[in-house]
Amino acid sequence: MAEIMKVHGSVISTATQRVLACLNEKELEFEFIPVNMAVGGSIRRIHSSPSIHLVKSQLLNREISSSFESRAITQYIAHGYAEKGTTLIIPGRPMATLSVWMEVEAHQFDPVASKLNWELFFKPMFGIPTDNAAVEENEAKLTKVLDVYEARLAQSKYLGGDIFTLADLHHLPNISCAMKTQVKKLFDCRPHVSAWVADITSRPAWCKVVAMGK
Amino acid sequence: MAEIMKVHGSVISTATQRVLACLNEKELEFEFIPVNMAVGGSIRRIHSSPSIHLVKSQLLNREISSSFESRAITQYIAHGYAEKGTTLIIPGRPMATLSVWMEVEAHQFDPVASKLNWELFFKPMFGIPTDNAAVEENEAKLTKVLDVYEARLAQSKYLGGDIFTLADLHHLPNISCAMKTQVKKLFDCRPHVSAWVADITSRPAWCKVVAMGK
Repeated sequence: MAEIMKVHGSVISTATQRVLACLNEKELEFEFIPVNMAVGGSIRRIHSSPSIHLVKSQLLNREISSSFESRAITQYIAHGYAEKGTTLIIPGRPMATLSVWMEVEAHQFDPVASKLNWELFFKPMFGIPTDNAAVEENEAKLTKVLDVYEARLAQSKYLGGDIFTLADLHHLPNISCAMKTQVKKLFDCRPHVSAWVADITSRPAWCKVVAMGK
Repeated sequence: MAEIMKVHGSVISTATQRVLACLNEKELEFEFIPVNMAVGGSIRRIHSSPSIHLVKSQLLNREISSSFESRAITQYIAHGYAEKGTTLIIPGRPMATLSVWMEVEAHQFDPVASKLNWELFFKPMFGIPTDNAAVEENEAKLTKVLDVYEARLAQSKYLGGDIFTLADLHHLPNISCAMKTQVKKLFDCRPHVSAWVADITSRPAWCKVVAMGK
């Protein structure tokens, strides 16, 4: 695993951002190869598509799909380079808790937050009208999810335990985008969630990713 | 983690079967609470819905969704009870490879195999006509996926490495069902895939799950 990794992606893709944040936390060198957003499908598809080729080129004999999940790549990096940079995973029994919070992010938080970001951030950027009913429905869902987060973060500094892990890192792209929309208020009104957001979005590894998009 | 776990589910649900196989491999006691398939939604929804409440009752303060992913539960069990029964995970760097193969199962194999099982096994069982175009399309996709598996299994006895892990276990429900359909031929004609299928489907932990459905 010594060669410099090549990351094909777009700096406005949440999937790409998730992988870049992980590489920065691990202090790993990489070459970023921007993918032209006009090529290969609709805006919506590229916004949500994972976009990294490093895993299959290193590990699989052949490409079986270009849609490699960003969270699989971050886990590959975190386990494969455990000794480098920020730990990001906690070996042994704590991995049980970590697995559950990674699941909560991927299946409870992400679909709702992604939809809200699409409606309130990306659609206005591309001049597409926002679907207000979808916003209302997903704000209600996010409220319930964030109530669970508030209770968890009252017990524990980070979602996976006392240290920052992939369970927190995976949230960064969607949270960072949501903070630029009206959805910010749902985070701000919950003190533990709000403190956690301030903490994780100010990590230098994440600030580097944000700077790449400017 | 001492109390006996309660598993709410259906013995014909692939999600339930995945969790039961994991509990059996770990030699953990559990109480199985059958969920009535006539309650709570369509056949299709129940066929594919994860159905286990053990994680959220142990770990989360409140329910945020009933759709807890079976693969998150197996990871929770495998990490949380690492010292019991079959190992199922390989700590350290091999977890990188394991994560990728778990991802391949969840995002490349499962959607295609689930669709074929729905068309060729569940639809006939429920008297619904099979969509032959969907079968043809998904058999072509599965062929490509199994070519990659054949190459991998020529190098390595199991997908994650030399030992049976969650990366193999997660395949069992869909493979076991597919072997009762015309899709069996796609596995049988690939010698390494075929040997792997024979090996993993004959594990006592899996045979116990199959027996529960009889």
